[in-house]
Amino acid sequence: MPAWETYLTDHATAYQEELLEFLCIPSVSALPAHAADVRRAGEWVENRLALAGVEEVRMLETGGHPVVYGEWLHAAGKPTVLIYGHFDTQPADPLGLWNSPPFEPVIRDGRVYARGASDDKGNMLVPILAVEAMLKTTGSLPINVKFLFEGQEEIGSPQLPTFLAAHRELFACDLVLSADGGQEGEEQPSIGVACKGLAGVQIDVKGASTDLHSGVFGGAVANPIHALVHLIDTMRTPEGKILVDGFYDAVVPLSEGDRAHIAAVPFDETAYKGRLGIDALVGEPGYTAAEQLGARPTLEVNGIWGGFQGAGTKTVLPSEAHAKITCRLVPNQDPAAIADLLAAHVRRHVAPGVTATVSRLPGQAKPYAIPADHWGNQAAAEVLAEVYGKKPYYTRTGGSIPVCELFQESLGAYTVSFAFGLMDEQIHAPNEFYRLASFTRGRVAYCKLLDYLGAK
Amino acid sequence: MPAWETYLTDHATAYQEELLEFLCIPSVSALPAHAADVRRAGEWVENRLALAGVEEVRMLETGGHPVVYGEWLHAAGKPTVLIYGHFDTQPADPLGLWNSPPFEPVIRDGRVYARGASDDKGNMLVPILAVEAMLKTTGSLPINVKFLFEGQEEIGSPQLPTFLAAHRELFACDLVLSADGGQEGEEQPSIGVACKGLAGVQIDVKGASTDLHSGVFGGAVANPIHALVHLIDTMRTPEGKILVDGFYDAVVPLSEGDRAHIAAVPFDETAYKGRLGIDALVGEPGYTAAEQLGARPTLEVNGIWGGFQGAGTKTVLPSEAHAKITCRLVPNQDPAAIADLLAAHVRRHVAPGVTATVSRLPGQAKPYAIPADHWGNQAAAEVLAEVYGKKPYYTRTGGSIPVCELFQESLGAYTVSFAFGLMDEQIHAPNEFYRLASFTRGRVAYCKLLDYLGAK
Repeated sequence: MPAWETYLTDHATAYQEELLEFLCIPSVSALPAHAADVRRAGEWVENRLALAGVEEVRMLETGGHPVVYGEWLHAAGKPTVLIYGHFDTQPADPLGLWNSPPFEPVIRDGRVYARGASDDKGNMLVPILAVEAMLKTTGSLPINVKFLFEGQEEIGSPQLPTFLAAHRELFACDLVLSADGGQEGEEQPSIGVACKGLAGVQIDVKGASTDLHSGVFGGAVANPIHALVHLIDTMRTPEGKILVDGFYDAVVPLSEGDRAHIAAVPFDETAYKGRLGIDALVGEPGYTAAEQLGARPTLEVNGIWGGFQGAGTKTVLPSEAHAKITCRLVPNQDPAAIADLLAAHVRRHVAPGVTATVSRLPGQAKPYAIPADHWGNQAAAEVLAEVYGKKPYYTRTGGSIPVCELFQESLGAYTVSFAFGLMDEQIHAPNEFYRLASFTRGRVAYCKLLDYLGAK
Repeated sequence: MPAWETYLTDHATAYQEELLEFLCIPSVSALPAHAADVRRAGEWVENRLALAGVEEVRMLETGGHPVVYGEWLHAAGKPTVLIYGHFDTQPADPLGLWNSPPFEPVIRDGRVYARGASDDKGNMLVPILAVEAMLKTTGSLPINVKFLFEGQEEIGSPQLPTFLAAHRELFACDLVLSADGGQEGEEQPSIGVACKGLAGVQIDVKGASTDLHSGVFGGAVANPIHALVHLIDTMRTPEGKILVDGFYDAVVPLSEGDRAHIAAVPFDETAYKGRLGIDALVGEPGYTAAEQLGARPTLEVNGIWGGFQGAGTKTVLPSEAHAKITCRLVPNQDPAAIADLLAAHVRRHVAPGVTATVSRLPGQAKPYAIPADHWGNQAAAEVLAEVYGKKPYYTRTGGSIPVCELFQESLGAYTVSFAFGLMDEQIHAPNEFYRLASFTRGRVAYCKLLDYLGAK
């Protein structure tokens, strides 16, 4: 048994305590009121990296939420990997649906429940602890390692492109390992080969200059809510086929090979529906659910509001209505071009008597794909097969990991997803949790991966 | 000059102070937290009636917000009128759009600004003060008068039908005078001959049992917001033509006479649009704006909500979406039948993968009409012509005054609208106000009307 493995076992309880401490920080990047908490989470990471023996640890300013950097670069002649993760979280609302407060982590049945437990605090802490175990036992690492932990992933990393462009040399590497993501199942590893891009817009519809009595003015004065629902309803069928002109034009069609690859991953539709409490799946005609989820673009309203939301009746003809929409994109769709198509759709379909404004939401991301047989994927596949006792699936995710495409563009390096979240862990939803078993197994896998890459 | 006129002039300043005091009570009937304030407003009215010399004044329980009653029944052989008004108000939100706090009345340029100033506290106080002027100067009234002031008009008077059925004898009368309504213009009186009915429903759409990550689940799991906007968009064109099967079936078509009557009332479309800050009117094809507003049924979403409404982006696939819808009805549409048609529409058009529930909102009302040449209208027309120096128009309102139809059904009496609000007074909207000139002129008009009815 390697020395790092004993070290990890000896420190398992302490590491668990540290995770709970990290999860207490409400580092919600989307809410301006929590900006100081995001920074506090960054300071926590900074301190933890230094304790691990990582060098040159520091907080770097981006103009928004900060980045935390660290390095260990004494493996001459060996490759350099950049380990990536994020210490910010999604908002916690709706609070009423949580079984325990989102920023007061509790452990039940081997799971830690808290906002950010799986996405991404539990996962990003794993490689720090793995590196610590190696440094504290052998005094060195098998390869060169850099760390980049950011605080704005959940709002789409708006300042990261400019920041990376300004620090190309600092972050130069041969490969990125992303500690933000997951595995197919508790006993089934996987290698992600594609993730979707993201384009988001907000639509603001304005009618009369003030709220009006719906009886006195209804019938002759346009209602912004009706205008808004018409705009949205003309964008998409309820099943999910997108009707925006030009939306699918740039999409690279799925090859027969792609479809076979996707079909090789078991998809238990009955169990899936049961877990979500729904009686039917939907989707664009002509594609399987798995193809929709992994490899077809989507358009979803994330939020809509206008008029009276209280109890009872308020007979108001509101003066405003609003919606937030995000699209998930696949190769070769461009986020800016898609946002333009949505704006053009709104101009074409806006009803008389109102004005509709389209503004871009933060968080654009280009779609990303990596060859299944890339050397980084080969290393990850070997280690995962050893740790799980099973060969990994090659999977695609509908989620966006904007940094993958960004690292490729700014650093010229592919990103291998090497993280241990699981799909049922309620990320972006109430009662998010992370399995303590993943927290443990992930540390072992990271040590083995560094060893494997160092031995090549 | 009659004695009551001198009395009214002498007390003008004191009456204005009393109105401000009345407006300080936040008697919002729709919000449970304000139930005690509604009752407090009722107590204020009870006290004010007693001070005026009205007899048998008392608060009566309805099971919801209370009713205040009073009477003066010593004009043997003369008709009995029931004077109606309401001391509850609409909610005040959105608070941010008020220039001064809604329940801290201020006077600017001869107008008092407060929630409920025009609808209906200013208007309902007028007949109490008119009766006081007559009783304090002559010791009697020319006719028999009863008062019914309620505290639940703005939520559609849910308990009033049962309450009136249980008190038919107490409220028996030859005619109702409603102090809830208005005139055509500052210098142009009007007699209302019809008001619309009301039917309201809430639609609740549920998808998966929890909010989900829009990237991980989008494409295969139905989005309740899309399902909801589809339900609404299929109910109505953005212009206002209603597409719900059977919606127009019971509507009595407008006669050529009705249309001529409506066309006789000037409607300055340019000024109307300018006042509301809109560049176009909308409406069902084939009808003028005035016909739409007064004599055609409408369907309006009063509120919609679902998913994330905060700043920035939250890539959530929400588990719920909601909308409140009210329809304004014309003779002979029935509110319960219309609510059933909406529920049937939802059942027919609900998308797969979600469930949609339709529940009725409080505040149903049947449409109402009174013959233009009814004896009560003739009396009102004579008095208004004398006070304004102009003959009144005969108008229809798109607003609902549910009690008109209710009084006809439960008491067998028509209701004549005799009130002095004006259409620009922002009722149900921020910065509601009431003209102090109306407050003064209304008192004179009420005294003259009682005199006229006593002299017949």
